[in-house]
Amino acid sequence: MKQWGFIATWCMAFDACFEASKELAIGTKKASDIVEHAIKKIEDYPFYKSVGCGGLPNTDGVVELDAAFFDGDTWDFGGVAGVKNIANPIGLAKKISTDRFNCFLVGEGATIEAQKQHLPFKNMLTERAQKAWEQKKQDILLKNLSPYDGHDTVGAVTLDQKGSMAAAVSTSGLFMKKSGRVGDSPFSGSGIYVDSEVGGCVATGLGEDIMKGCLSYEVVRLMEEGLSPMEAGEKALNRFEQKMLKKRNHCGAISLAILNNKGEWGIATNVEYSFVVSTQDIPATVFIAHRKEQKTIIEKASEEWLQAWYKKTHRDTITI
Amino acid sequence: MKQWGFIATWCMAFDACFEASKELAIGTKKASDIVEHAIKKIEDYPFYKSVGCGGLPNTDGVVELDAAFFDGDTWDFGGVAGVKNIANPIGLAKKISTDRFNCFLVGEGATIEAQKQHLPFKNMLTERAQKAWEQKKQDILLKNLSPYDGHDTVGAVTLDQKGSMAAAVSTSGLFMKKSGRVGDSPFSGSGIYVDSEVGGCVATGLGEDIMKGCLSYEVVRLMEEGLSPMEAGEKALNRFEQKMLKKRNHCGAISLAILNNKGEWGIATNVEYSFVVSTQDIPATVFIAHRKEQKTIIEKASEEWLQAWYKKTHRDTITI
Repeated sequence: MKQWGFIATWCMAFDACFEASKELAIGTKKASDIVEHAIKKIEDYPFYKSVGCGGLPNTDGVVELDAAFFDGDTWDFGGVAGVKNIANPIGLAKKISTDRFNCFLVGEGATIEAQKQHLPFKNMLTERAQKAWEQKKQDILLKNLSPYDGHDTVGAVTLDQKGSMAAAVSTSGLFMKKSGRVGDSPFSGSGIYVDSEVGGCVATGLGEDIMKGCLSYEVVRLMEEGLSPMEAGEKALNRFEQKMLKKRNHCGAISLAILNNKGEWGIATNVEYSFVVSTQDIPATVFIAHRKEQKTIIEKASEEWLQAWYKKTHRDTITI
Repeated sequence: MKQWGFIATWCMAFDACFEASKELAIGTKKASDIVEHAIKKIEDYPFYKSVGCGGLPNTDGVVELDAAFFDGDTWDFGGVAGVKNIANPIGLAKKISTDRFNCFLVGEGATIEAQKQHLPFKNMLTERAQKAWEQKKQDILLKNLSPYDGHDTVGAVTLDQKGSMAAAVSTSGLFMKKSGRVGDSPFSGSGIYVDSEVGGCVATGLGEDIMKGCLSYEVVRLMEEGLSPMEAGEKALNRFEQKMLKKRNHCGAISLAILNNKGEWGIATNVEYSFVVSTQDIPATVFIAHRKEQKTIIEKASEEWLQAWYKKTHRDTITI
């Protein structure tokens, strides 16, 4: 059996990773379909507050979503940004990725295209997310808090047994963002990049900063030069952070999930970051990473950590 | 006097280049302000059919505009996409570039922000552009023509005498694009990238293809490795084209304009491409480039060529 692999950002991708790993082990479905299905599953789950249905709204209380799909074989790339009321932004991104023209659509135009493509519509604002928004509005007003929190984009890179790779990302973006704000996620090279001859990378974190560095492109490029996924991720992130500190005195949260075309994986992060991996050698597993004295420490999530995460994620109210 | 430089895509940038060169020679204004002013001038000119006022509309007959601004010193980056009725999209992009959050805005959200920032609004659809749209609609219907033509983004990179660099791009995108379609232009690393410690690059051409290669980022990266602007441009474009041919059997029109922090300039193109340059050593000049047997040939535009261009550009009707 040939190598296969799946890596995705954040613990929320565990169920999707588990399902994907079963399909990848069987080996009949394509990487592109598996990664789309995985992201759809996460978009559909109303308890994840940063992706799809249940995602946190913008400052006006409206859920605006971004997504992108990238086929590593054909370089079919599709992106959507600031879309509303579409059940699966990733489905629209994949749909338009095969078009030679108009493969990136924003706002109302994206909604019109989804209608023409007969994709399902849905009210993506859950009562739970709305309550969190109302609470945050109050807090900002009364406690003068910074409105910006919570931008946990889900992104995944997949390698199937035939050697095809694909990547996909989906996010509701920054909680309390301005209407129309888009982060790095749907931009080729910033939030997502994949080449089946090399590997792929997806990013999560402060999109405004990530897009200044084209980090997903840079990681894939470094892998093409011969670096392992871990080496490429760390090198790209460290270099970028140094530039950011020099130019701007600060650098936002950034985490990467990386897979090469041999099924080897890697990550890089400047915050505590959970991610999920499965390959031929590893059953679907949640890992936690953080940086300590310039080194990336990766540990398997403990039962205790997972239970606390599950409890927090499924509470009636969202705590930010 | 220290080196300064200005390079921009397409002959339409000549007047803006001439004016910018005068300012750069005086040396008091900053690169960021000079490049914004240059692009505004082009946005304002109603005879340019691919940028700002007078830009060709989308398939619904609506002018939707994209722009981005990038400061090479601070990495302040701002982008807008799918904006309507704003007199100067580049002004909005520069305005939001200094925000740590919400530096990329699309669609209606961008319009709201422009209002809050007290930026001037304007009906950007000229009668001339509307006539061209009506004609094209007819042609598509009657002659079954491909709707997609004309995507001549203006982009400029500027170096001032203090060593500061900045880049800016503005476009109405693909003529007859779908509502909400965005090309590479406003995306960091794809249509625009600049680092004052190295240099900058802007792109024009088929955005759907350019964004698959993060070409502006790649060119700046190659210059950081020590390549000259010409070497970096040619290497990045050639490599990308080879990958595209392998993966997709075709590669759209792509042209680049490049300037490094020593005031050396370069271009790369796979079509006939006009551009304008001015440095301490060259007064504002229009050049024409094309590729012949894998070599880039650059010639000064003849008086005849310029007169024909002027006549075509200022006709009452637009011919595509």
